[in-house]
Amino acid sequence: MENKDFIESLNSFCTKFDKHLEKWSQLPTFPQKLKNSISYINKTGGKRIRPFIVCEIASLFGAGFDKSIAAAVAIEMIHTYSLIHDDLPSMDNDDFRRGKMTLHKKYDEAIAILTGDSLLTESFSLLVKNYGKKNPKMSVDLILYLSCAAGGAGLVGGQILDLYPTGKNLNSIKRMQKMKTGELFICSSAFGAILGAASKKDFKNMIFIGDRLGRSFQIIDDILDVIGDEKIVGKKTRKDREQGKVTLVDLLGIKKSRLMAKKYIEESIEVLSHYRNKSDRLIALSKYIIDRSL
Amino acid sequence: MENKDFIESLNSFCTKFDKHLEKWSQLPTFPQKLKNSISYINKTGGKRIRPFIVCEIASLFGAGFDKSIAAAVAIEMIHTYSLIHDDLPSMDNDDFRRGKMTLHKKYDEAIAILTGDSLLTESFSLLVKNYGKKNPKMSVDLILYLSCAAGGAGLVGGQILDLYPTGKNLNSIKRMQKMKTGELFICSSAFGAILGAASKKDFKNMIFIGDRLGRSFQIIDDILDVIGDEKIVGKKTRKDREQGKVTLVDLLGIKKSRLMAKKYIEESIEVLSHYRNKSDRLIALSKYIIDRSL
Repeated sequence: MENKDFIESLNSFCTKFDKHLEKWSQLPTFPQKLKNSISYINKTGGKRIRPFIVCEIASLFGAGFDKSIAAAVAIEMIHTYSLIHDDLPSMDNDDFRRGKMTLHKKYDEAIAILTGDSLLTESFSLLVKNYGKKNPKMSVDLILYLSCAAGGAGLVGGQILDLYPTGKNLNSIKRMQKMKTGELFICSSAFGAILGAASKKDFKNMIFIGDRLGRSFQIIDDILDVIGDEKIVGKKTRKDREQGKVTLVDLLGIKKSRLMAKKYIEESIEVLSHYRNKSDRLIALSKYIIDRSL
Repeated sequence: MENKDFIESLNSFCTKFDKHLEKWSQLPTFPQKLKNSISYINKTGGKRIRPFIVCEIASLFGAGFDKSIAAAVAIEMIHTYSLIHDDLPSMDNDDFRRGKMTLHKKYDEAIAILTGDSLLTESFSLLVKNYGKKNPKMSVDLILYLSCAAGGAGLVGGQILDLYPTGKNLNSIKRMQKMKTGELFICSSAFGAILGAASKKDFKNMIFIGDRLGRSFQIIDDILDVIGDEKIVGKKTRKDREQGKVTLVDLLGIKKSRLMAKKYIEESIEVLSHYRNKSDRLIALSKYIIDRSL
Protein backbone atom coordinates (compact mmCIF):
# COMPACT_ATOMS: atom_id res chain seq x y z
CA MET A 1 0.00 0.00 0.00
CA GLU A 2 1.32 3.42 -1.01
CA ASN A 3 1.87 5.96 1.78
CA LYS A 4 -0.59 8.31 0.02
CA ASP A 5 -3.32 5.66 0.10
CA PHE A 6 -2.55 4.87 3.71
CA ILE A 7 -2.88 8.53 4.74
CA GLU A 8 -6.22 8.62 2.97
CA SER A 9 -7.32 5.49 4.79
CA LEU A 10 -6.14 6.87 8.16
CA ASN A 11 -7.94 10.17 7.54
CA SER A 12 -11.16 8.43 6.68
CA PHE A 13 -10.81 6.35 9.87
CA CYS A 14 -10.24 9.56 11.87
CA THR A 15 -13.44 11.15 10.54
CA LYS A 16 -15.54 8.19 11.66
CA PHE A 17 -13.58 7.76 14.89
CA ASP A 18 -13.81 11.41 15.98
CA LYS A 19 -17.61 11.31 15.87
CA HIS A 20 -17.69 8.41 18.31
CA LEU A 21 -15.03 10.00 20.50
CA GLU A 22 -17.06 13.18 20.83
CA LYS A 23 -20.25 11.24 21.57
CA TRP A 24 -18.79 8.81 24.10
CA SER A 25 -16.32 10.96 26.01
CA GLN A 26 -19.12 12.92 27.67
CA LEU A 27 -22.64 12.47 29.00
CA PRO A 28 -25.55 14.92 28.91
CA THR A 29 -25.48 15.02 32.74
CA PHE A 30 -21.92 16.42 32.88
CA PRO A 31 -21.56 20.08 33.95
CA GLN A 32 -21.51 22.33 30.86
CA LYS A 33 -17.98 23.53 31.67
CA LEU A 34 -16.70 19.96 31.54
CA LYS A 35 -18.52 19.22 28.30
CA ASN A 36 -16.95 22.32 26.74
CA SER A 37 -13.43 21.38 27.75
CA ILE A 38 -13.84 17.78 26.56
CA SER A 39 -15.14 19.00 23.19
CA TYR A 40 -12.23 21.44 22.94
CA ILE A 41 -9.63 18.78 23.60
CA ASN A 42 -11.33 16.34 21.20
CA LYS A 43 -11.26 18.99 18.47
CA THR A 44 -7.50 19.55 18.86
CA GLY A 45 -7.26 16.31 16.92
CA GLY A 46 -4.40 13.86 17.00
CA LYS A 47 -3.02 11.14 14.80
CA ARG A 48 -5.36 8.52 16.36
CA ILE A 49 -2.71 5.86 15.89
CA ARG A 50 -3.66 3.83 18.98
CA PRO A 51 -7.37 3.50 18.12
CA PHE A 52 -6.39 2.75 14.51
CA ILE A 53 -4.26 -0.15 15.79
CA VAL A 54 -7.18 -1.42 17.92
CA CYS A 55 -9.63 -1.47 15.00
CA GLU A 56 -7.15 -2.80 12.43
CA ILE A 57 -5.98 -5.69 14.60
CA ALA A 58 -9.56 -6.49 15.61
CA SER A 59 -10.50 -6.63 11.93
CA LEU A 60 -7.52 -8.95 11.26
CA PHE A 61 -9.43 -11.50 13.38
CA GLY A 62 -12.86 -10.75 12.01
CA ALA A 63 -14.16 -8.18 14.53
CA GLY A 64 -15.61 -5.23 12.65
CA PHE A 65 -15.59 -1.49 13.38
CA ASP A 66 -18.93 -1.64 15.22
CA LYS A 67 -17.46 -4.06 17.72
CA SER A 68 -14.05 -2.44 18.16
CA ILE A 69 -14.88 1.27 18.14
CA ALA A 70 -15.81 1.59 21.84
CA ALA A 71 -12.54 -0.02 22.93
CA ALA A 72 -10.66 2.22 20.50
CA VAL A 73 -12.33 5.31 21.97
CA ALA A 74 -11.48 4.17 25.52
CA ILE A 75 -7.78 3.90 24.60
CA GLU A 76 -7.74 7.36 23.00
CA MET A 77 -9.49 8.86 26.05
CA ILE A 78 -6.69 7.49 28.23
CA HIS A 79 -4.06 8.84 25.81
CA THR A 80 -5.74 12.27 25.79
CA TYR A 81 -5.98 12.43 29.58
CA SER A 82 -2.29 11.58 29.87
CA LEU A 83 -1.32 14.39 27.48
CA ILE A 84 -3.50 16.91 29.38
CA HIS A 85 -1.84 16.03 32.70
CA ASP A 86 1.69 15.81 31.22
CA ASP A 87 1.31 19.30 29.73
CA LEU A 88 0.46 20.90 33.12
CA PRO A 89 2.76 23.65 34.51
CA SER A 90 3.93 21.35 37.32
CA MET A 91 5.06 18.76 34.77
CA ASP A 92 6.14 19.51 31.19
CA ASN A 93 4.64 23.02 31.25
CA ASP A 94 3.56 23.10 27.61
CA ASP A 95 1.50 25.94 26.15
CA PHE A 96 0.83 24.28 22.82
CA ARG A 97 -0.07 20.80 21.68
CA ARG A 98 -1.01 19.83 18.14
CA GLY A 99 -0.64 23.49 17.24
CA LYS A 100 -3.42 24.54 19.63
CA MET A 101 -3.46 25.90 23.17
CA THR A 102 -3.13 23.23 25.83
CA LEU A 103 -6.18 22.81 28.06
CA HIS A 104 -4.81 24.63 31.12
CA LYS A 105 -3.94 27.58 28.87
CA LYS A 106 -7.35 27.61 27.20
CA TYR A 107 -9.21 27.27 30.53
CA ASP A 108 -7.23 26.83 33.75
CA GLU A 109 -5.30 24.20 35.67
CA ALA A 110 -8.26 22.98 37.72
CA ILE A 111 -10.33 22.35 34.60
CA ALA A 112 -7.39 20.63 32.92
CA ILE A 113 -6.78 18.28 35.86
CA LEU A 114 -10.47 17.47 36.25
CA THR A 115 -11.04 16.97 32.53
CA GLY A 116 -8.18 14.47 32.57
CA ASP A 117 -9.72 12.75 35.60
CA SER A 118 -13.06 12.53 33.83
CA LEU A 119 -11.60 11.05 30.63
CA LEU A 120 -9.61 8.50 32.64
CA THR A 121 -12.63 7.44 34.71
CA GLU A 122 -15.11 7.38 31.84
CA SER A 123 -12.86 5.21 29.69
CA PHE A 124 -13.54 2.35 32.12
CA SER A 125 -17.21 3.24 32.16
CA LEU A 126 -17.29 3.02 28.38
CA LEU A 127 -15.75 -0.46 28.42
CA VAL A 128 -18.29 -1.87 30.89
CA LYS A 129 -21.22 -0.17 29.23
CA ASN A 130 -20.33 -1.44 25.76
CA TYR A 131 -19.07 -4.96 26.45
CA GLY A 132 -20.14 -5.79 30.01
CA LYS A 133 -23.68 -6.95 29.38
CA LYS A 134 -23.11 -9.04 26.25
CA ASN A 135 -19.71 -10.36 27.19
CA PRO A 136 -18.63 -9.73 30.81
CA LYS A 137 -15.50 -11.87 30.35
CA MET A 138 -14.33 -9.74 27.40
CA SER A 139 -15.10 -6.57 29.33
CA VAL A 140 -13.03 -7.81 32.28
CA ASP A 141 -10.09 -8.67 30.00
CA LEU A 142 -10.16 -5.24 28.36
CA ILE A 143 -10.31 -3.41 31.70
CA LEU A 144 -7.51 -5.53 33.13
CA TYR A 145 -5.24 -4.66 30.20
CA LEU A 146 -6.13 -0.99 30.16
CA SER A 147 -5.84 -0.41 33.90
CA CYS A 148 -2.45 -2.14 34.04
CA ALA A 149 -1.15 -0.21 31.00
CA ALA A 150 -2.39 3.12 32.39
CA GLY A 151 -1.51 2.75 36.09
CA GLY A 152 1.56 3.02 38.28
CA ALA A 153 3.40 0.24 36.47
CA GLY A 154 2.56 1.79 33.09
CA LEU A 155 1.71 5.29 31.90
CA VAL A 156 1.61 7.02 35.32
CA GLY A 157 4.77 5.31 36.54
CA GLY A 158 6.52 6.15 33.25
CA GLN A 159 5.67 9.83 33.63
CA ILE A 160 7.11 9.80 37.16
CA LEU A 161 10.34 8.21 35.87
CA ASP A 162 10.46 10.77 33.05
CA LEU A 163 10.19 13.64 35.58
CA TYR A 164 12.42 11.99 38.19
CA PRO A 165 14.79 9.63 36.37
CA THR A 166 16.44 6.97 38.49
CA GLY A 167 19.31 6.62 36.00
CA LYS A 168 20.62 8.05 32.75
CA ASN A 169 21.69 4.84 31.06
CA LEU A 170 20.10 2.97 28.17
CA ASN A 171 18.27 0.49 30.40
CA SER A 172 16.63 3.06 32.62
CA ILE A 173 15.56 5.12 29.59
CA LYS A 174 14.15 2.03 27.90
CA ARG A 175 12.23 1.09 31.07
CA MET A 176 10.75 4.57 31.29
CA GLN A 177 9.76 4.60 27.60
CA LYS A 178 8.24 1.13 27.81
CA MET A 179 6.05 2.30 30.71
CA LYS A 180 5.20 5.76 29.40
CA THR A 181 4.57 4.92 25.74
CA GLY A 182 5.04 1.21 25.15
CA GLU A 183 2.38 -0.19 27.44
CA LEU A 184 -0.46 1.74 25.78
CA PHE A 185 0.68 0.63 22.30
CA ILE A 186 0.83 -2.95 23.55
CA CYS A 187 -2.60 -2.48 25.12
CA SER A 188 -3.98 -1.25 21.78
CA SER A 189 -2.72 -4.43 20.10
CA ALA A 190 -4.03 -6.58 22.95
CA PHE A 191 -7.43 -4.86 22.66
CA GLY A 192 -7.63 -5.79 18.97
CA ALA A 193 -6.68 -9.39 19.75
CA ILE A 194 -9.18 -9.65 22.64
CA LEU A 195 -12.00 -8.19 20.51
CA GLY A 196 -11.17 -10.61 17.71
CA ALA A 197 -10.87 -13.57 20.13
CA ALA A 198 -7.41 -14.29 18.69
CA SER A 199 -5.66 -17.59 19.43
CA LYS A 200 -2.86 -17.66 22.02
CA LYS A 201 -0.21 -17.61 19.29
CA ASP A 202 -1.84 -14.72 17.44
CA PHE A 203 -2.25 -12.86 20.73
CA LYS A 204 1.48 -13.18 21.39
CA ASN A 205 2.24 -11.95 17.87
CA MET A 206 0.03 -8.91 18.33
CA ILE A 207 1.66 -8.04 21.65
CA PHE A 208 5.02 -8.22 19.87
CA ILE A 209 3.81 -5.89 17.11
CA GLY A 210 2.42 -3.40 19.65
CA ASP A 211 5.71 -3.44 21.50
CA ARG A 212 7.75 -2.81 18.35
CA LEU A 213 5.46 -0.04 17.10
CA GLY A 214 5.57 1.65 20.51
CA ARG A 215 9.34 1.51 20.75
CA SER A 216 9.93 2.94 17.29
CA PHE A 217 7.21 5.56 17.77
CA GLN A 218 8.95 6.84 20.91
CA ILE A 219 12.40 6.95 19.28
CA ILE A 220 11.03 8.99 16.38
CA ASP A 221 9.33 11.29 18.91
CA ASP A 222 12.69 11.87 20.58
CA ILE A 223 14.36 12.51 17.21
CA LEU A 224 11.61 14.97 16.23
CA ASP A 225 12.20 16.81 19.50
CA VAL A 226 15.78 17.41 18.35
CA ILE A 227 15.40 18.04 14.61
CA GLY A 228 11.65 18.67 14.16
CA ASP A 229 10.05 21.87 12.91
CA GLU A 230 7.83 23.33 15.67
CA LYS A 231 5.27 24.46 13.11
CA ILE A 232 4.91 20.96 11.71
CA VAL A 233 5.24 19.03 14.98
CA GLY A 234 2.68 21.37 16.57
CA LYS A 235 4.41 21.64 19.94
CA LYS A 236 7.58 23.09 21.40
CA THR A 237 10.69 21.18 20.32
CA ARG A 238 14.19 20.94 21.85
CA LYS A 239 12.43 20.59 25.16
CA ASP A 240 14.08 17.43 26.39
CA ARG A 241 17.51 19.05 26.37
CA GLU A 242 16.22 22.31 27.89
CA GLN A 243 14.68 20.33 30.74
CA GLY A 244 17.89 18.36 31.20
CA LYS A 245 16.22 15.11 30.14
CA VAL A 246 18.52 12.44 28.73
CA THR A 247 16.91 10.59 25.83
CA LEU A 248 17.94 7.64 23.73
CA VAL A 249 19.05 10.13 21.05
CA ASP A 250 21.54 11.68 23.48
CA LEU A 251 23.07 8.30 24.21
CA LEU A 252 23.11 6.83 20.69
CA GLY A 253 22.98 9.82 18.35
CA ILE A 254 20.34 10.43 15.70
CA LYS A 255 21.70 7.99 13.12
CA LYS A 256 21.92 5.00 15.44
CA SER A 257 18.57 5.83 17.04
CA ARG A 258 16.89 5.93 13.64
CA LEU A 259 18.48 2.60 12.74
CA MET A 260 17.11 1.12 15.95
CA ALA A 261 13.61 2.42 15.18
CA LYS A 262 13.93 1.00 11.67
CA LYS A 263 14.93 -2.41 13.02
CA TYR A 264 11.87 -2.47 15.31
CA ILE A 265 9.61 -1.57 12.39
CA GLU A 266 11.13 -4.32 10.23
CA GLU A 267 10.47 -6.82 13.00
CA SER A 268 6.85 -5.64 13.18
CA ILE A 269 6.43 -5.93 9.41
CA GLU A 270 8.01 -9.39 9.41
CA VAL A 271 5.33 -10.68 11.82
CA LEU A 272 2.53 -8.78 10.08
CA SER A 273 3.47 -10.36 6.74
CA HIS A 274 2.21 -13.71 8.12
CA TYR A 275 -1.30 -12.21 8.03
CA ARG A 276 -1.32 -11.75 4.28
CA ASN A 277 -3.83 -9.49 2.50
CA LYS A 278 -5.46 -8.39 5.72
CA SER A 279 -2.41 -6.64 7.17
CA ASP A 280 -1.69 -4.14 4.38
CA ARG A 281 -2.82 -1.14 6.37
CA LEU A 282 -0.92 -2.21 9.49
CA ILE A 283 2.25 -2.64 7.42
CA ALA A 284 1.68 0.82 5.93
CA LEU A 285 1.16 2.18 9.46
CA SER A 286 4.47 0.66 10.55
CA LYS A 287 6.27 2.49 7.74
CA TYR A 288 4.38 5.70 8.48
CA ILE A 289 5.54 5.63 12.10
CA ILE A 290 9.21 6.00 11.15
CA ASP A 291 8.69 8.27 8.15
CA ARG A 292 6.43 10.79 9.91
CA SER A 293 7.41 14.40 10.48
CA LEU A 294 4.78 15.08 13.17
CA MET B 1 -24.93 -0.20 70.34
CA GLU B 2 -23.19 2.43 72.46
CA ASN B 3 -21.14 5.06 70.62
CA LYS B 4 -18.04 3.94 72.58
CA ASP B 5 -18.49 0.34 71.36
CA PHE B 6 -19.06 1.55 67.82
CA ILE B 7 -15.83 3.60 67.84
CA GLU B 8 -13.99 0.51 69.06
CA SER B 9 -15.53 -1.55 66.30
CA LEU B 10 -14.69 1.09 63.66
CA ASN B 11 -11.10 1.31 64.92
CA SER B 12 -10.66 -2.42 64.79
CA PHE B 13 -12.03 -2.38 61.23
CA CYS B 14 -9.57 0.39 60.31
CA THR B 15 -6.60 -1.62 61.57
CA LYS B 16 -7.48 -4.58 59.36
CA PHE B 17 -8.54 -2.37 56.47
CA ASP B 18 -5.39 -0.23 56.44
CA LYS B 19 -3.19 -3.29 55.96
CA HIS B 20 -5.08 -4.25 52.82
CA LEU B 21 -5.13 -0.68 51.57
CA GLU B 22 -1.35 -0.42 51.88
CA LYS B 23 -0.86 -3.79 50.16
CA TRP B 24 -3.28 -3.26 47.28
CA SER B 25 -2.81 0.40 46.45
CA GLN B 26 0.65 -0.26 45.03
CA LEU B 27 2.60 -2.88 43.12
CA PRO B 28 6.28 -3.84 43.49
CA THR B 29 6.85 -2.66 39.90
CA PHE B 30 5.83 0.95 40.66
CA PRO B 31 8.64 3.54 40.76
CA GLN B 32 9.94 3.96 44.32
CA LYS B 33 8.88 7.61 44.40
CA LEU B 34 5.28 6.62 43.69
CA LYS B 35 5.33 3.87 46.30
CA ASN B 36 6.59 6.36 48.88
CA SER B 37 3.88 8.90 48.15
CA ILE B 38 1.14 6.25 48.21
CA SER B 39 2.39 4.97 51.57
CA TYR B 40 2.51 8.52 52.90
CA ILE B 41 -1.05 9.27 51.91
CA ASN B 42 -2.29 5.92 53.24
CA LYS B 43 -0.64 6.67 56.59
CA THR B 44 -2.39 10.03 56.93
CA GLY B 45 -5.38 7.90 57.87
CA GLY B 46 -9.01 8.79 57.51
CA LYS B 47 -12.28 7.76 59.02
CA ARG B 48 -12.70 4.93 56.45
CA ILE B 49 -16.46 5.41 56.54
CA ARG B 50 -17.02 4.43 52.90
CA PRO B 51 -15.17 1.09 53.10
CA PHE B 52 -16.88 0.42 56.43
CA ILE B 53 -20.25 0.84 54.71
CA VAL B 54 -19.18 -1.55 51.92
CA CYS B 55 -18.16 -4.30 54.32
CA GLU B 56 -21.06 -3.83 56.73
CA ILE B 57 -23.73 -3.89 54.02
CA ALA B 58 -22.06 -6.86 52.33
CA SER B 59 -22.12 -8.71 55.65
CA LEU B 60 -25.83 -7.84 56.05
CA PHE B 61 -26.38 -10.14 53.06
CA GLY B 62 -23.91 -12.81 54.09
CA ALA B 63 -20.76 -11.71 52.23
CA GLY B 64 -17.82 -11.74 54.63
CA PHE B 65 -14.81 -9.45 54.99
CA ASP B 66 -12.65 -11.64 52.72
CA LYS B 67 -15.08 -11.11 49.89
CA SER B 68 -15.80 -7.43 50.42
CA ILE B 69 -12.40 -6.05 51.38
CA ALA B 70 -11.06 -5.54 47.82
CA ALA B 71 -14.15 -3.56 46.80
CA ALA B 72 -13.85 -1.54 50.01
CA VAL B 73 -10.21 -0.73 49.25
CA ALA B 74 -11.12 0.31 45.68
CA ILE B 75 -13.69 2.81 47.01
CA GLU B 76 -11.23 4.28 49.50
CA MET B 77 -8.57 4.62 46.79
CA ILE B 78 -11.01 6.68 44.73
CA HIS B 79 -11.89 8.80 47.78
CA THR B 80 -8.19 9.37 48.54
CA TYR B 81 -7.37 10.34 44.95
CA SER B 82 -10.23 12.84 44.97
CA LEU B 83 -8.94 14.48 48.17
CA ILE B 84 -5.40 14.70 46.77
CA HIS B 85 -6.61 16.45 43.61
CA ASP B 86 -9.12 18.68 45.46
CA ASP B 87 -6.35 19.88 47.79
CA LEU B 88 -4.11 21.07 44.92
CA PRO B 89 -3.14 24.75 44.71
CA SER B 90 -5.24 25.21 41.56
CA MET B 91 -8.32 23.95 43.41
CA ASP B 92 -8.90 24.21 47.19
CA ASN B 93 -5.22 24.98 47.90
CA ASP B 94 -5.03 23.15 51.21
CA ASP B 95 -1.76 22.67 53.10
CA PHE B 96 -3.14 20.28 55.70
CA ARG B 97 -5.50 17.34 55.67
CA ARG B 98 -6.20 15.07 58.62
CA GLY B 99 -3.65 17.13 60.58
CA LYS B 100 -0.82 16.19 58.20
CA MET B 101 0.78 17.92 55.22
CA THR B 102 -1.14 17.47 51.97
CA LEU B 103 0.69 15.47 49.31
CA HIS B 104 1.72 18.41 47.11
CA LYS B 105 3.20 20.09 50.22
CA LYS B 106 5.04 16.95 51.31
CA TYR B 107 6.36 16.24 47.77
CA ASP B 108 5.29 18.47 44.91
CA GLU B 109 2.33 19.07 42.61
CA ALA B 110 3.44 16.67 39.90
CA ILE B 111 3.75 13.80 42.37
CA ALA B 112 0.39 14.68 43.90
CA ILE B 113 -1.40 14.72 40.54
CA LEU B 114 0.24 11.48 39.41
CA THR B 115 -0.35 9.70 42.72
CA GLY B 116 -4.03 10.58 42.37
CA ASP B 117 -4.01 9.29 38.80
CA SER B 118 -2.42 6.04 39.94
CA LEU B 119 -4.93 5.47 42.76
CA LEU B 120 -7.83 6.18 40.41
CA THR B 121 -6.56 3.81 37.73
CA GLU B 122 -5.51 1.03 40.06
CA SER B 123 -8.88 0.99 41.83
CA PHE B 124 -10.36 -0.43 38.61
CA SER B 125 -7.46 -2.83 38.30
CA LEU B 126 -8.12 -4.08 41.81
CA LEU B 127 -11.77 -4.76 41.00
CA VAL B 128 -11.00 -6.84 37.90
CA LYS B 129 -8.13 -8.67 39.54
CA ASN B 130 -10.16 -9.65 42.59
CA TYR B 131 -13.57 -10.40 41.12
CA GLY B 132 -13.08 -10.70 37.37
CA LYS B 133 -11.94 -14.29 37.15
CA LYS B 134 -14.36 -15.90 39.60
CA ASN B 135 -17.32 -13.68 38.81
CA PRO B 136 -16.96 -11.47 35.72
CA LYS B 137 -20.57 -10.32 35.98
CA MET B 138 -20.04 -9.06 39.56
CA SER B 139 -16.82 -7.37 38.52
CA VAL B 140 -18.61 -5.60 35.66
CA ASP B 141 -21.40 -4.41 38.01
CA LEU B 142 -18.89 -3.03 40.51
CA ILE B 143 -16.91 -1.19 37.83
CA LEU B 144 -20.05 0.23 36.28
CA TYR B 145 -21.16 1.65 39.63
CA LEU B 146 -17.75 2.99 40.59
CA SER B 147 -16.92 4.59 37.25
CA CYS B 148 -20.31 6.33 37.12
CA ALA B 149 -20.00 7.56 40.72
CA ALA B 150 -16.45 8.81 40.17
CA GLY B 151 -16.74 10.35 36.69
CA GLY B 152 -18.05 13.52 35.12
CA ALA B 153 -21.62 12.93 36.32
CA GLY B 154 -20.36 12.16 39.84
CA LEU B 155 -17.26 13.09 41.83
CA VAL B 156 -15.38 14.93 39.07
CA GLY B 157 -18.45 16.82 37.87
CA GLY B 158 -19.31 17.71 41.48
CA GLN B 159 -15.86 19.18 42.05
CA ILE B 160 -16.24 21.30 38.90
CA LEU B 161 -19.63 22.59 40.14
CA ASP B 162 -18.07 23.30 43.56
CA LEU B 163 -15.31 25.38 41.93
CA TYR B 164 -17.56 26.96 39.32
CA PRO B 165 -21.11 27.01 40.72
CA THR B 166 -23.88 27.44 38.19
CA GLY B 167 -26.23 28.81 40.85
CA LYS B 168 -26.38 29.70 44.54
CA ASN B 169 -29.79 28.30 45.38
CA LEU B 170 -30.72 25.19 47.36
CA ASN B 171 -31.24 23.04 44.29
CA SER B 172 -27.90 23.80 42.67
CA ILE B 173 -26.08 23.21 45.97
CA LYS B 174 -27.91 19.92 46.50
CA ARG B 175 -27.04 18.81 42.95
CA MET B 176 -23.37 19.62 43.51
CA GLN B 177 -23.28 17.81 46.88
CA LYS B 178 -25.06 14.77 45.47
CA MET B 179 -22.42 14.50 42.74
CA LYS B 180 -19.37 15.38 44.84
CA THR B 181 -20.18 13.38 47.98
CA GLY B 182 -23.46 11.55 47.57
CA GLU B 183 -22.62 9.34 44.60
CA LEU B 184 -19.63 7.69 46.31
CA PHE B 185 -21.68 7.00 49.46
CA ILE B 186 -24.41 5.50 47.28
CA CYS B 187 -21.76 3.51 45.43
CA SER B 188 -20.43 2.16 48.76
CA SER B 189 -23.91 0.92 49.62
CA ALA B 190 -24.40 -0.49 46.13
CA PHE B 191 -21.06 -2.29 46.40
CA GLY B 192 -22.18 -4.00 49.61
CA ALA B 193 -25.47 -5.02 48.00
CA ILE B 194 -23.75 -6.31 44.83
CA LEU B 195 -21.21 -8.32 46.85
CA GLY B 196 -24.00 -9.80 48.94
CA ALA B 197 -26.17 -10.50 45.87
CA ALA B 198 -29.03 -8.61 47.50
CA SER B 199 -32.56 -8.84 46.12
CA LYS B 200 -33.94 -5.95 44.06
CA LYS B 201 -35.88 -4.62 47.01
CA ASP B 202 -32.90 -4.84 49.37
CA PHE B 203 -30.72 -3.19 46.72
CA LYS B 204 -33.12 -0.26 46.54
CA ASN B 205 -33.12 0.03 50.33
CA MET B 206 -29.33 0.09 50.45
CA ILE B 207 -29.16 2.80 47.76
CA PHE B 208 -31.59 4.83 49.89
CA ILE B 209 -29.43 4.39 52.99
CA GLY B 210 -26.26 5.39 51.10
CA ASP B 211 -28.02 8.48 49.79
CA ARG B 212 -29.20 9.53 53.25
CA LEU B 213 -25.83 8.90 54.90
CA GLY B 214 -24.08 10.88 52.16
CA ARG B 215 -26.44 13.85 52.43
CA SER B 216 -26.16 14.12 56.20
CA PHE B 217 -22.39 13.56 56.10
CA GLN B 218 -21.98 16.52 53.74
CA ILE B 219 -24.21 18.82 55.81
CA ILE B 220 -22.20 18.05 58.94
CA ASP B 221 -18.99 18.70 56.95
CA ASP B 222 -20.31 22.14 56.01
CA ILE B 223 -21.31 22.84 59.63
CA LEU B 224 -17.86 21.76 60.87
CA ASP B 225 -16.30 24.15 58.36
CA VAL B 226 -18.15 26.97 60.15
CA ILE B 227 -17.98 25.96 63.81
CA GLY B 228 -15.30 23.25 63.90
CA ASP B 229 -11.99 23.39 65.76
CA GLU B 230 -9.11 23.25 63.23
CA LYS B 231 -7.05 21.11 65.59
CA ILE B 232 -9.78 18.51 65.87
CA VAL B 233 -11.04 18.65 62.28
CA GLY B 234 -7.42 18.36 61.07
CA LYS B 235 -7.78 20.84 58.22
CA LYS B 236 -8.32 24.53 57.70
CA THR B 237 -11.85 25.62 58.62
CA ARG B 238 -13.92 28.67 57.62
CA LYS B 239 -12.68 28.03 54.12
CA ASP B 240 -15.97 27.94 52.29
CA ARG B 241 -16.76 31.51 53.24
CA GLU B 242 -13.20 32.71 52.55
CA GLN B 243 -13.43 31.22 49.07
CA GLY B 244 -16.84 32.78 48.55
CA LYS B 245 -18.55 29.40 48.39
CA VAL B 246 -22.23 29.33 49.28
CA THR B 247 -23.14 26.21 51.26
CA LEU B 248 -26.36 24.81 52.57
CA VAL B 249 -25.46 26.28 55.98
CA ASP B 250 -25.40 29.79 54.47
CA LEU B 251 -28.87 29.34 53.05
CA LEU B 252 -30.55 27.56 55.97
CA GLY B 253 -28.47 28.45 59.02
CA ILE B 254 -26.78 25.95 61.34
CA LYS B 255 -29.88 24.93 63.27
CA LYS B 256 -32.03 24.14 60.26
CA SER B 257 -29.14 22.41 58.50
CA ARG B 258 -28.53 20.18 61.50
CA LEU B 259 -32.23 19.34 61.63
CA MET B 260 -32.11 18.36 57.98
CA ALA B 261 -29.08 16.12 58.57
CA LYS B 262 -30.89 14.59 61.54
CA LYS B 263 -33.97 13.89 59.42
CA TYR B 264 -31.86 12.09 56.82
CA ILE B 265 -30.20 9.99 59.51
CA GLU B 266 -33.57 9.06 61.00
CA GLU B 267 -34.75 7.95 57.57
CA SER B 268 -31.61 5.81 57.22
CA ILE B 269 -32.12 4.25 60.64
CA GLU B 270 -35.80 3.58 59.89
CA VAL B 271 -34.86 1.44 56.86
CA LEU B 272 -31.92 -0.21 58.66
CA SER B 273 -34.21 -1.28 61.50
CA HIS B 274 -35.87 -3.71 59.06
CA TYR B 275 -32.60 -5.65 59.07
CA ARG B 276 -32.76 -6.48 62.75
CA ASN B 277 -29.74 -7.71 64.74
CA LYS B 278 -27.41 -7.45 61.76
CA SER B 279 -27.68 -3.70 61.32
CA ASP B 280 -26.56 -2.54 64.78
CA ARG B 281 -23.23 -1.22 63.58
CA LEU B 282 -24.78 0.57 60.59
CA ILE B 283 -27.32 2.23 62.88
CA ALA B 284 -24.47 3.27 65.19
CA LEU B 285 -22.58 4.60 62.15
CA SER B 286 -25.61 6.67 61.16
CA LYS B 287 -25.67 8.30 64.60
CA TYR B 288 -21.89 8.78 64.54
CA ILE B 289 -22.13 10.68 61.24
CA ILE B 290 -24.19 13.50 62.78
CA ASP B 291 -22.53 13.50 66.20
CA ARG B 292 -18.93 13.60 64.94
CA SER B 293 -16.61 16.52 65.56
CA LEU B 294 -14.11 15.58 62.82
